[in-house]
Amino acid sequence: MKKLVAEFIGTLWLVLGGCGSAVLAAGFPELGIGFVGVSFAFGLTVLTMAYAIGHISGCHLNPAVTVGLWIGGRFESKDVLGYIIAQVLGGLAGASILYLIATGKAGVELGGFAANGYGEASPGGYNLTSALITEVVMTFMFLTIILGSTYPKSPAGFAGIAIGLALVLIHLISIPVTNTSVNPARSTSQAIFAGGIYLQQLWLFWIAPIVGAVLAGIVYKYLSPNE
Amino acid sequence: MKKLVAEFIGTLWLVLGGCGSAVLAAGFPELGIGFVGVSFAFGLTVLTMAYAIGHISGCHLNPAVTVGLWIGGRFESKDVLGYIIAQVLGGLAGASILYLIATGKAGVELGGFAANGYGEASPGGYNLTSALITEVVMTFMFLTIILGSTYPKSPAGFAGIAIGLALVLIHLISIPVTNTSVNPARSTSQAIFAGGIYLQQLWLFWIAPIVGAVLAGIVYKYLSPNE
Amino acid sequence: MKKLVAEFIGTLWLVLGGCGSAVLAAGFPELGIGFVGVSFAFGLTVLTMAYAIGHISGCHLNPAVTVGLWIGGRFESKDVLGYIIAQVLGGLAGASILYLIATGKAGVELGGFAANGYGEASPGGYNLTSALITEVVMTFMFLTIILGSTYPKSPAGFAGIAIGLALVLIHLISIPVTNTSVNPARSTSQAIFAGGIYLQQLWLFWIAPIVGAVLAGIVYKYLSPNE
Amino acid sequence: MKKLVAEFIGTLWLVLGGCGSAVLAAGFPELGIGFVGVSFAFGLTVLTMAYAIGHISGCHLNPAVTVGLWIGGRFESKDVLGYIIAQVLGGLAGASILYLIATGKAGVELGGFAANGYGEASPGGYNLTSALITEVVMTFMFLTIILGSTYPKSPAGFAGIAIGLALVLIHLISIPVTNTSVNPARSTSQAIFAGGIYLQQLWLFWIAPIVGAVLAGIVYKYLSPNE
Repeated sequence: MKKLVAEFIGTLWLVLGGCGSAVLAAGFPELGIGFVGVSFAFGLTVLTMAYAIGHISGCHLNPAVTVGLWIGGRFESKDVLGYIIAQVLGGLAGASILYLIATGKAGVELGGFAANGYGEASPGGYNLTSALITEVVMTFMFLTIILGSTYPKSPAGFAGIAIGLALVLIHLISIPVTNTSVNPARSTSQAIFAGGIYLQQLWLFWIAPIVGAVLAGIVYKYLSPNE
Repeated sequence: MKKLVAEFIGTLWLVLGGCGSAVLAAGFPELGIGFVGVSFAFGLTVLTMAYAIGHISGCHLNPAVTVGLWIGGRFESKDVLGYIIAQVLGGLAGASILYLIATGKAGVELGGFAANGYGEASPGGYNLTSALITEVVMTFMFLTIILGSTYPKSPAGFAGIAIGLALVLIHLISIPVTNTSVNPARSTSQAIFAGGIYLQQLWLFWIAPIVGAVLAGIVYKYLSPNE
Repeated sequence: MKKLVAEFIGTLWLVLGGCGSAVLAAGFPELGIGFVGVSFAFGLTVLTMAYAIGHISGCHLNPAVTVGLWIGGRFESKDVLGYIIAQVLGGLAGASILYLIATGKAGVELGGFAANGYGEASPGGYNLTSALITEVVMTFMFLTIILGSTYPKSPAGFAGIAIGLALVLIHLISIPVTNTSVNPARSTSQAIFAGGIYLQQLWLFWIAPIVGAVLAGIVYKYLSPNE
Repeated sequence: MKKLVAEFIGTLWLVLGGCGSAVLAAGFPELGIGFVGVSFAFGLTVLTMAYAIGHISGCHLNPAVTVGLWIGGRFESKDVLGYIIAQVLGGLAGASILYLIATGKAGVELGGFAANGYGEASPGGYNLTSALITEVVMTFMFLTIILGSTYPKSPAGFAGIAIGLALVLIHLISIPVTNTSVNPARSTSQAIFAGGIYLQQLWLFWIAPIVGAVLAGIVYKYLSPNE
């Protein structure tokens, strides 16, 4: 149960911090934080939680991460569903807090919140194929980094830095394409508030990250040294 | 006494560095550092001090941190008041140095310095409720990260990175709402120079961070593994 | 063979992440990531791969790095050619994925992709001499940092941070001059897609980085403590 | 002698990287790196060199650092002068390489290079008093961080991160005031190329950093735990 509470709080933080930085800074186009700031915000939610709750739950914060670790032989089957439910609920809690904060000013227009999308819902107008490739490949690399950097014989403690900065990097690359998901819990939390086209496209941001994560788990099993 | 001197110097650095980066860069809207630069400046004051004075005083630099560590069972009651006084005095010293530097040019207008506020004193015009939620939640997460990353069995040395970058992240999220406090000593140091509405609103930036820190201390006691 | 697959995946990531961040963000001049974001993207590809595959292949991702480590006495002759081939192929795969993603929007103009160049192909119009000095010196320093930070008696684990952030720094300095190569595999992957003048100038981005790397290997042998 | 060569190369890198990022990016006001990028460039030169040459020379790269460590009882008197000479020569070499690169384009105007100054030579027009306070306090804090983070009982390896990011922070704060020195070798290298007013003001950027460093050495002796 402690593990599930930790995953709930951690995913709340990922959504409140990452999506929150984008939504709240939108009113400051000149001095605001831009894509670089949003990229760092997402990555730092994971980096900070890795050190805060890593010793409790492993700090997945993401259904694709949970599935990838399970396929890679590093997480037990019996805990997969519980983790995913805690992550989705934590994401919704984070989005709710963000909604409360963001609506506390005059004349606010939340638009698509920080939802993910393709086609007309893509920040840069990228089509379904580009979005699909992007999310599969980005999640594949994310899980490759997670699985490799937590390799048991590695020097202890550095994985949180590598994984957090990997998420910074993934956002620096792919915000223009899909607004960057690689995380179905994060996408769900925003689509529910954004509604419309974002809810219709939500399927992609469950399927593509999980496909990428499964592929990474398989490749990792081949690549990893015999332990 | 060495501990109090260390907290004094450290909080001086937090205010001079964090608030100073914002105040001094304000004259360079084009090439200046924006919210991203100010966010990094605040976080790096804590990161650098964690390694410089962590072994002396524990590097709190913040009354809410001191209270949260105390509630979480990681700091002794008898030292709480002394630490808070040293932090407030250090913050005032930092603000004084900043005032001296910032007024050394022609036609300077300091306005609200780098003070915190809500309503008309919020950078983005967010109301009291948004400000209250923001400061409580941000400080709650800050203390959760501090308490978790300094968990005794964690790999030594990484806490300073996690905690410093947590403060970067908190600023990336919440500068638009309250100009980001999560630290009553930092808020006090600026309100005294900014005066007026900022002094009238200062109560919020003592109460909300301390409430968030107390809640984090309680949750941490539940979450932490039996040691 | 596992080593070559790891180098292939790693160099794919370097090109997709580093060049991809530049190509995909080009459509967002206001909120985009600028040279700072591109610099961090390149560096973080190497930082993340260092922890993901460092224990498998050593994470070179760059023919100049492989040559420099070989000259410095830290890599075996028999593996040099295989590594370089895997790196060039990985770079091409990364560029191909990037091409697929980037062309998935209406009215796309890829121009020079993220290719390297001098003279009229230099972002800032710098001539051949400036480009040559820049690439030799930057790669010399890159290898000096790689060789020094992986010195066997250093505290374990920090080299990935130092080397990744070295590449951030090198891009912060030299994007205006050559668009920053220091890596023949990265340059080749982009020149093939950009064609024309970029292909004609590709020779420089093989010769200069390798010259810089060889010099660094020689200096390192003199500087390194007797082990 | 190896130590002096290491200090020469390291200070060359500090000037070429830090000053170079500012000088070369000046032609790109829109997409360029701004004060944030320059701040990271300076700090990352020190961070990367700490891991590259720290085990050879200690990686001072700065006469004020050498003096501060000497006053703090952590560096031997007999090596002070040699280190300072190697640092000044390395800075001049870095500035020379930068000059060669930067002049390799049509219509280049180097102006003040990346020199330090006050009054009309201050980026923000800050007067002599502001400049003096800034340089003394910034160098005092820089040395406090260096002396504290290299405290012998600290977890090994983190000092390079703390010290490098301290220099990032110091630049985020003080570029508007003096263009940030805290390093007489860096200031000398630029003043010689910039000439005129910058040479006349160079005295300040020797005296103020060294005064700050001496004060930090004295305070550190009081603060440091009995070892």
